[in-house]
Amino acid sequence: MPRIVSLASAHASTSAVLAAGLVRVEARFRDQLDTPIRPVAELCEHVERYRGKMLRPTLVILSGLAANTALVEPNDDHIVVAAVIEMIHMATLVHDDVLDDASVRRGGDTVNKCKGNEAAIILGDYLLSKSFHLCSTLDTQRTALRVGEVTSIVCEGEMLQLAQRGDFDLGEPAYFNIIRRKTAALIALACELGASHADAPRAIVQRLSDFGDKIGTAFQIQDDLLDLVGDEPVVGKSLGKDLDKGKLTLPLIHHLSRLDSARRAATIERLKSGASTPAERAALARDLEATGSIRFAREKAKDLVSQAKSLLSPLDDSRARAALLSLADAVITRTF
Amino acid sequence: MPRIVSLASAHASTSAVLAAGLVRVEARFRDQLDTPIRPVAELCEHVERYRGKMLRPTLVILSGLAANTALVEPNDDHIVVAAVIEMIHMATLVHDDVLDDASVRRGGDTVNKCKGNEAAIILGDYLLSKSFHLCSTLDTQRTALRVGEVTSIVCEGEMLQLAQRGDFDLGEPAYFNIIRRKTAALIALACELGASHADAPRAIVQRLSDFGDKIGTAFQIQDDLLDLVGDEPVVGKSLGKDLDKGKLTLPLIHHLSRLDSARRAATIERLKSGASTPAERAALARDLEATGSIRFAREKAKDLVSQAKSLLSPLDDSRARAALLSLADAVITRTF
Repeated sequence: MPRIVSLASAHASTSAVLAAGLVRVEARFRDQLDTPIRPVAELCEHVERYRGKMLRPTLVILSGLAANTALVEPNDDHIVVAAVIEMIHMATLVHDDVLDDASVRRGGDTVNKCKGNEAAIILGDYLLSKSFHLCSTLDTQRTALRVGEVTSIVCEGEMLQLAQRGDFDLGEPAYFNIIRRKTAALIALACELGASHADAPRAIVQRLSDFGDKIGTAFQIQDDLLDLVGDEPVVGKSLGKDLDKGKLTLPLIHHLSRLDSARRAATIERLKSGASTPAERAALARDLEATGSIRFAREKAKDLVSQAKSLLSPLDDSRARAALLSLADAVITRTF
Repeated sequence: MPRIVSLASAHASTSAVLAAGLVRVEARFRDQLDTPIRPVAELCEHVERYRGKMLRPTLVILSGLAANTALVEPNDDHIVVAAVIEMIHMATLVHDDVLDDASVRRGGDTVNKCKGNEAAIILGDYLLSKSFHLCSTLDTQRTALRVGEVTSIVCEGEMLQLAQRGDFDLGEPAYFNIIRRKTAALIALACELGASHADAPRAIVQRLSDFGDKIGTAFQIQDDLLDLVGDEPVVGKSLGKDLDKGKLTLPLIHHLSRLDSARRAATIERLKSGASTPAERAALARDLEATGSIRFAREKAKDLVSQAKSLLSPLDDSRARAALLSLADAVITRTF
């Protein structure tokens, strides 16, 4: 059972419905990638290794159930939408690992590490194509339009991030513009489409979309925190990559804003040389603690989660809604 | 005016309709990529540089007009389909240049050369997403399904090619399996969708699809020939890349099959070290001429073009059909 979901295990009956739904999503995902072409099948097997939390499929299903309490289980559209979004997410992970030169993901070798950058690039393209194909099997084109639109937004976030690498003057608004696009947009889409495919009223669909935007943003802040202060074996992926790649994240933006110009300049010089070794990362983490920058980022994420949760107040009380609330908390308490 | 199209310029009225259609395709293409986000817009500008022959949009339009002679000009669906296919083609070029470490395309720097591999990877993803989005604006989902399906097939071709790099035992069937997927499939789709969006009968749609498959295969053989014996300034892209990357193409497959085991082994050793310099390429070209391997590949391509042309015999006589026939010839007489 995926780890983040088990945090909602207090809600036993929802958990059972969710688990059954995720099994259907996994089957749809695998069916869509099934191929007799051996080199393609071999590459697709690596994708299994990338799958972990199933956060986005979980959000599709729970959003559907919470938005329409008459539903006792996710419908077929939910399963397709969940598989589509998870496949797009996998494509971005596979390509991100090439962009980041990352060698570890979910505790195993990345595709680029095992099979080379070229295979990883083609595999990502294949996953994108297969996901759009699956999406086009739905009765309504509106969903395919939204999926195409949001996938483009994710790419825009990646391009902005790339363009702003090595920019130590990056401010909070630019940071949030990047992470809302590259991470929150797809999470918000999962919630939105879960609700819209449950035939929820437009206002409820919008609330769930906003809920996804907030927890997605918090999720990325937590990811950025883990990259700085996480424990690599626990997190299960290469850490310190943001600094290696000149990506400024929220704790560092705050930290730099708290320093006088001489210390700021010295810190920037240090950051430019990266922080890959555990000792360098530990020293940096101490400095960030000293300026309260870790706490600042944690508070921002916590605040977003709290806003997200309050968005769900008008929804009918249900186990799915309670599970979404637990999941929102889990986004920032996770250590992996 | 795109160069390959001008080969059909004998057909003046068709040329005018085609040129007007291509202007609409270009406008649709640009609109779809229009964005206020500067780093994204900057990357998209590079795509303009990649556009040259507009072969696929030309095929969509001519196939539509040839399949239904009652049409006096391409309809709106043709314009959308043409822009979608061209955008997917651009995505594959941008990613291919990363895979091939190519630095020159259409006589200019490639995206990976100017902006780095990372930007090229994200730009390709963006083009794919934007093309699927545009495709979902069509009234019929059938087209989106076909586009997703064929784009996956293109990726499969790329994966097969990658898996078979450095395999000097590659035979003709495996070679054709790769190039039909990676190149011919999208060209066949252009012809198929041109015809189907002209409401042509199923048998005619199939004929145009097969026509595209044949000329697409011939097109790739010609590309592979140019990589070996082309003139880099004329071709306008990096040559000798196939050998550098251990890709065996038709002339080499034929050449190796004509050698005794000692010469074969010696030739393979030589091929393994690549053939990037003009002198190495010239020496290799002489050997390939000696075994008749260049002529063999040219004949294969010519035969495919002749099969393609005969597929169009049952179509009503029209200027569009005549233009398709000229275009089929141009695929293998081109030097760029």
